[in-house]
Amino acid sequence: MTQMDAALRGEVTEEMAAVAADEGMAPGSLRRLIASGRAVIPANVHHDGLRPVGIGEGLRTKINSNIGTSVYDTDMGKELEKLRLSRKLGADALMDLSTAGDLGAIRARLLGEWDLAFGTVPIYQAMAEAGDIADVTAERMLRAIEDHARDGVDFVTVHSGVTLDAIPLVRKRILGAVSRGGAFLLSWMMAHGEQNPLNAEFDAILEMAREHDVTLSLGDGLRPGGIPDNTDEAQLHELRVLGGLTRRARAAGVQVIIEGPGHIPLHRVVENVRLEKEACDGAPFYVLGPLVTDIAMGHDHITAAIGAAVAGAAGADFLCYVTPAEHLRLPEPEDVAEGVIALKIAAHAADIAKGVPGAYERDLAMTKARRDLDWEAQMALALDPDKARRYREESHIKTEECTMCGPYCAIKMFRGGC
Amino acid sequence: MTQMDAALRGEVTEEMAAVAADEGMAPGSLRRLIASGRAVIPANVHHDGLRPVGIGEGLRTKINSNIGTSVYDTDMGKELEKLRLSRKLGADALMDLSTAGDLGAIRARLLGEWDLAFGTVPIYQAMAEAGDIADVTAERMLRAIEDHARDGVDFVTVHSGVTLDAIPLVRKRILGAVSRGGAFLLSWMMAHGEQNPLNAEFDAILEMAREHDVTLSLGDGLRPGGIPDNTDEAQLHELRVLGGLTRRARAAGVQVIIEGPGHIPLHRVVENVRLEKEACDGAPFYVLGPLVTDIAMGHDHITAAIGAAVAGAAGADFLCYVTPAEHLRLPEPEDVAEGVIALKIAAHAADIAKGVPGAYERDLAMTKARRDLDWEAQMALALDPDKARRYREESHIKTEECTMCGPYCAIKMFRGGC
Repeated sequence: MTQMDAALRGEVTEEMAAVAADEGMAPGSLRRLIASGRAVIPANVHHDGLRPVGIGEGLRTKINSNIGTSVYDTDMGKELEKLRLSRKLGADALMDLSTAGDLGAIRARLLGEWDLAFGTVPIYQAMAEAGDIADVTAERMLRAIEDHARDGVDFVTVHSGVTLDAIPLVRKRILGAVSRGGAFLLSWMMAHGEQNPLNAEFDAILEMAREHDVTLSLGDGLRPGGIPDNTDEAQLHELRVLGGLTRRARAAGVQVIIEGPGHIPLHRVVENVRLEKEACDGAPFYVLGPLVTDIAMGHDHITAAIGAAVAGAAGADFLCYVTPAEHLRLPEPEDVAEGVIALKIAAHAADIAKGVPGAYERDLAMTKARRDLDWEAQMALALDPDKARRYREESHIKTEECTMCGPYCAIKMFRGGC
Repeated sequence: MTQMDAALRGEVTEEMAAVAADEGMAPGSLRRLIASGRAVIPANVHHDGLRPVGIGEGLRTKINSNIGTSVYDTDMGKELEKLRLSRKLGADALMDLSTAGDLGAIRARLLGEWDLAFGTVPIYQAMAEAGDIADVTAERMLRAIEDHARDGVDFVTVHSGVTLDAIPLVRKRILGAVSRGGAFLLSWMMAHGEQNPLNAEFDAILEMAREHDVTLSLGDGLRPGGIPDNTDEAQLHELRVLGGLTRRARAAGVQVIIEGPGHIPLHRVVENVRLEKEACDGAPFYVLGPLVTDIAMGHDHITAAIGAAVAGAAGADFLCYVTPAEHLRLPEPEDVAEGVIALKIAAHAADIAKGVPGAYERDLAMTKARRDLDWEAQMALALDPDKARRYREESHIKTEECTMCGPYCAIKMFRGGC
């Protein structure tokens, strides 16, 4: 029985009770959200030691950190350091995007170390294990999903919305496809002249998801890769297909989240959130950024934080981080840390805007701590107390106020004069 | 004759012609904006070698970098390095906020090195030169403004909106006043039992501004210092006072910009821009952030970039940068660089959203360069090519694609398959 099945039967599972307590929400309210598909709890029955995380309407905005090996770097110590930093700085979910090394062993190792929601993109394994990616079979793609489901992965990306009829739409674009899974499936369909197996065999995928209670993260294989391609026909076509798949998944008692763009200009971010909520009957929206400009290579964690904050405030539920390394190189651990913090800021800013309980209260406490020049309280409330402490210590001056205003501290002048 | 006088007489000055060319706008259209006060060109008649910058409606969103000495650090080499980085990374304006050392000599040195719009807060000099800040006289405050005007400063912050009747409103707040000028003037008024001289003597200030064509940046001495104090009575009271002063300045042919918050939650940023445009008859809005949460010490350049992008898209014209050092210590040169880049991203994202000519086109060119895997073109279009180049080089792999996706490069798969 999946979380959704239980919710539909009126049962509050252990996971729902834990998430409700964590969110300060009545368990019955959360159960109704899970039953309706407007919130999900990715909780694979095989994921031992999972601390369940809820994603969706009325809940805190969550963030995801991506890590994983590549042929250019299979240093597992580095990936574990990225995992550790992601956990410490507040990521709610981790995706293992490894494409080199013993992928099953890597996955098992990371799953063993990560106690929150854990996701993967099984098709990467199918691609990595084929000698030539043209040789990947439909059967191999499905088997990868099943392997990950059996291993305890809580949510898997399946690019089931990439279909044959989208090919002419993608060809109209400037930048085609920038999703690895999307580009692979497009070229696979062209080479084989057949429908995308992740779409054609969606019922088989639902069966596997149902058996292990894996949440399907319906991938946006056709997300725009640049501002000029935003919200175009190809993107909207895929979104409509994902809406249909969402309804099939719900009918099967399978939880679903929807992946979204990508590169979207600031004035169209809200519209993109509304389009998703409408097309997919309020399913949780998992945005990749969105990046609000294309010209900030080396600083795209900031570009993403801008788009993600606005998307989150408009109703996006789950924010995938972007690191300063995006578009340039594999992220190093310090890039991961920058990406997590930038998206935590976006998520918290969105939560204040959405009125999520507890969000404003933390800023209220910080404002009081600032008024009192109470540095220990400020550090305890900060998203990144280590950096804050280091900055204060590096000023090498032991004053009650900070060195920013020094003897002209506005807080002290106001306190003294008024 | 000020820029505004000339515009009202139908004359296109050399400065208007230069700004119009830079913005790709018809000189006549810019002249009309200057005449109406909806755009300004801060251009002190004594600023030799100035490359004039326009700020306001229909123009590119501009950003400001703050630098300056303090009793904790009077190293002029460091300030010049901050100036150099600000110029290189694209700041449109520089404010010298120095409070220690020979302030006149520092200002002259920085003005000699900076060819764009240059601003100061003269009251800091009045405060710094008094033995005790309670001893600062009204005459000394006005003399500081005159000194700066004679020295060639293009725009000066005057906290003329902080008035006696605001004191009970500020006392209701959690965090009182966090503007140095605002807190000083509040405590000065309490100590002397008199109106703020920058308000009482506003006509004298207008006369000085007119003589040297100094643009007045009407300071927000009562800006909120935390999310809980946002858009409160004290802030709105000051904004109304600034609206009245704006009308007096325009009647005197003096250009005005309005400084704005501060700490504002994401869902109230647009409202704050509209309130300013309405209260101040469309005067250019110069926002300090706004910071959309209080808990991100050490990363507040990101918090500010989120608020500034949204404010800019809604019509804010001039964005003051915030560095990672905000709330913690004086910014070091590397903090200045981070702050400038973060706000450049915000300004550009806003310009795409507002439809400023040339903004979208740069992203279009970047998207085409990405499609072609043309790294030299990408670097030429990037906001920070040095960091982008360093990241690419640090991956130590000489491939056409980047190491992010490596052998699974979506762009190459798409190109090969479709």
